[in-house]
Amino acid sequence: MDNGATTPTDPEILEAMKPYFTDIFGNASSFHSFGREARNAITEARDSVAKLIGADDSREIVFTSGGTESDNYAIKGVAEALEKKGKHIITSSIEHHAVLHTCQYLEKKKGFEVTYLAVDEDGMVNPQDVKDAIKEDTILITIMMANNEVGTIQPIAEIGKIAKEAGVTFHTDAVQAVGTIPVDVNELNVDLLSLSGHKFNAPKGIGALYIRKGTKVAKYLHGGAQERNRRATTENVPGIVGLGKACEIALNTMDEKSAKLTVLRDRLISGIEEQVDYVKLNGHRTERLPGNVNFSIRYIEGESILMKLDLEGIAASSGSACTSGSLDPSHVLLAMGLTHEVAHGSLRLTLGKYNTEEDVDRVLDVLPKVVTDLRAMSPIYNG
Amino acid sequence: MDNGATTPTDPEILEAMKPYFTDIFGNASSFHSFGREARNAITEARDSVAKLIGADDSREIVFTSGGTESDNYAIKGVAEALEKKGKHIITSSIEHHAVLHTCQYLEKKKGFEVTYLAVDEDGMVNPQDVKDAIKEDTILITIMMANNEVGTIQPIAEIGKIAKEAGVTFHTDAVQAVGTIPVDVNELNVDLLSLSGHKFNAPKGIGALYIRKGTKVAKYLHGGAQERNRRATTENVPGIVGLGKACEIALNTMDEKSAKLTVLRDRLISGIEEQVDYVKLNGHRTERLPGNVNFSIRYIEGESILMKLDLEGIAASSGSACTSGSLDPSHVLLAMGLTHEVAHGSLRLTLGKYNTEEDVDRVLDVLPKVVTDLRAMSPIYNG
Ligand SMILES: Cc1ncc(COP(=O)(O)O)c(C=O)c1O
Ligand SMILES: Cc1ncc(COP(=O)(O)O)c(C=O)c1O
Repeated sequence: MDNGATTPTDPEILEAMKPYFTDIFGNASSFHSFGREARNAITEARDSVAKLIGADDSREIVFTSGGTESDNYAIKGVAEALEKKGKHIITSSIEHHAVLHTCQYLEKKKGFEVTYLAVDEDGMVNPQDVKDAIKEDTILITIMMANNEVGTIQPIAEIGKIAKEAGVTFHTDAVQAVGTIPVDVNELNVDLLSLSGHKFNAPKGIGALYIRKGTKVAKYLHGGAQERNRRATTENVPGIVGLGKACEIALNTMDEKSAKLTVLRDRLISGIEEQVDYVKLNGHRTERLPGNVNFSIRYIEGESILMKLDLEGIAASSGSACTSGSLDPSHVLLAMGLTHEVAHGSLRLTLGKYNTEEDVDRVLDVLPKVVTDLRAMSPIYNG
Repeated sequence: MDNGATTPTDPEILEAMKPYFTDIFGNASSFHSFGREARNAITEARDSVAKLIGADDSREIVFTSGGTESDNYAIKGVAEALEKKGKHIITSSIEHHAVLHTCQYLEKKKGFEVTYLAVDEDGMVNPQDVKDAIKEDTILITIMMANNEVGTIQPIAEIGKIAKEAGVTFHTDAVQAVGTIPVDVNELNVDLLSLSGHKFNAPKGIGALYIRKGTKVAKYLHGGAQERNRRATTENVPGIVGLGKACEIALNTMDEKSAKLTVLRDRLISGIEEQVDYVKLNGHRTERLPGNVNFSIRYIEGESILMKLDLEGIAASSGSACTSGSLDPSHVLLAMGLTHEVAHGSLRLTLGKYNTEEDVDRVLDVLPKVVTDLRAMSPIYNG
């Protein structure tokens, strides 16, 4: 129930990767036949990624070490390439930290001005707000496609249209979207798009950045001439092959997977709403990732629920995995207008392709009891 | 014969990694037991890396996506952290492009001044030159431990002592050294050290940066709080486990591997010197990586030898893999005083743990014929 944090690598994907560890292990930049074989595998994988996101040309895909690097590369890369043109960036207040902290870095260390757009109570960005925020010196708009905590899907195509009309480079962090919902870089009018393998059953440590032809982005990793001189470092061939395979599978099974997850999600949402008092669904009810469920459960600490669920063998999260070490309430929930107290009692359940109806029913069996038990101990709950 | 470019992943290492793809696939930052298991595996791997390089505290190890990221992180990180103190960096002219291009970037885009030290004809940096180059505003010295093209091992301990006495942060790119020759961060007096898994039979896409406690380095990847807030992004658990295992194996087998490679290397060197005319060994004859052989072969183009050897099933390189697409002669050989013409005819053979005496003898059988054939066709060779 924590597929939003990460997913297992598909056995089929691991199988596809295996030969590239031990047998076809060449350095893809090497001249000889070992190198050539690795190079061919990368080309094929790049085509699969391009196809999944509707890129016109697979040369627009650069492989990275994951979603965070893609976000850093896109945002710092545009900032550096265009800082002579302007130093204003528009983003939202509910972005993943890979975007938020990068923007804050540019603000604090590099003299950029960043507008953090507010969202409504469903966690939705208003495209009109984006339009209104554009100034003479705006060089980048970066708005995520789907939120990792509450699952809200943003009106990226509309924002893309606005960005295009204004001639401003547009990046979207689509880490939670790619592989789960349809993503088409041309329909969305995005110039840059981040994706990460481990969110859709490819391994950890591999991701990609889509860079539309003609988009000005400075290099992020300096060194060798790999990836057509856009990302130095010996290519992670097995990882790339795994990502390619995951894209291929996603292309063929997305409709089916999405339909299944939506049914499970809605069963979970209505089950919780029926069986547990004082809960509030966070995020948009329909414009929502198929696998995402996020509730605030009043009079309870998020951590205590997680602990109890863990003892029952149910893996869940209180927000995003990257900050689960911290005790700060979710910046996403706060931005959506929740109080600190309510934000603290939030529970995220994220379904993946391996979840079943039985899993959902088990949560619906265990969770109400856990909540009752915890509330019974709570000094602030009085039945 | 191209283990300097990359090595196959050991079957034993792949075995150790496998469970972390499909079963123990948790996000190491997650609260629940799946996350905990991943976290424990990372802790163990970090200990193995620390042990191999003699770090006092495994918290001084940060995992990265490879040698290039480690180099970028170290150099840009120190530059950013200390730019108020000074903007002068000392490096050598024979560094890997991951260091050289990063330094050039700082020079061109960030107003740093970089001293590129010359090397002698063996590719050796003179520690006295380092000392003489230190100025009031020097904030970083970055000198590689072993050269990837010619195998020359630098006097890092001496340079480290000079850096320490001068109070200047010292980084070494030890990508070619770690796992092959003994490396001890305290004996070497380094503050930062880069290593990369795929050079010693761990997978591609994983590396580490050693950061001595107290060293000031700005963050490179912004985002989540992973790696004790020093490197954002979901941890590449299988890769990390693989690197840990490789370090463990290296610690136990290094002496043996090194002795074996040295014998093979010297057999290859003397065989070539005996059987082929007009050749020159590049790099230091004894202060040299155990697996590295690099010859300039007069009156021949590097590429033609590679092609012929490839047809015979022998994988070799003309220099580093990262630049093998380019036709520029090696910057390392030019820095060692070779002419363009001679540098062009260079051949690197790099031995790894899976090479045998038979492999060496096969090269000694094939190479002289290839050279004779090619010279017969050369307009500039007249017997
Ligand atoms: C929306 C979003 N962006 C970025 C990331 C970072 O991706 P990665 O962990 O691959 O660096 C994540 C997940 O952690 C995410 O959910
Ligand atoms: C000396 C040296 N430094 C850095 C690198 C870069 O390492 P990686 O390919 O892991 O990024 C390499 C190898 O490519 C190398 O030989």
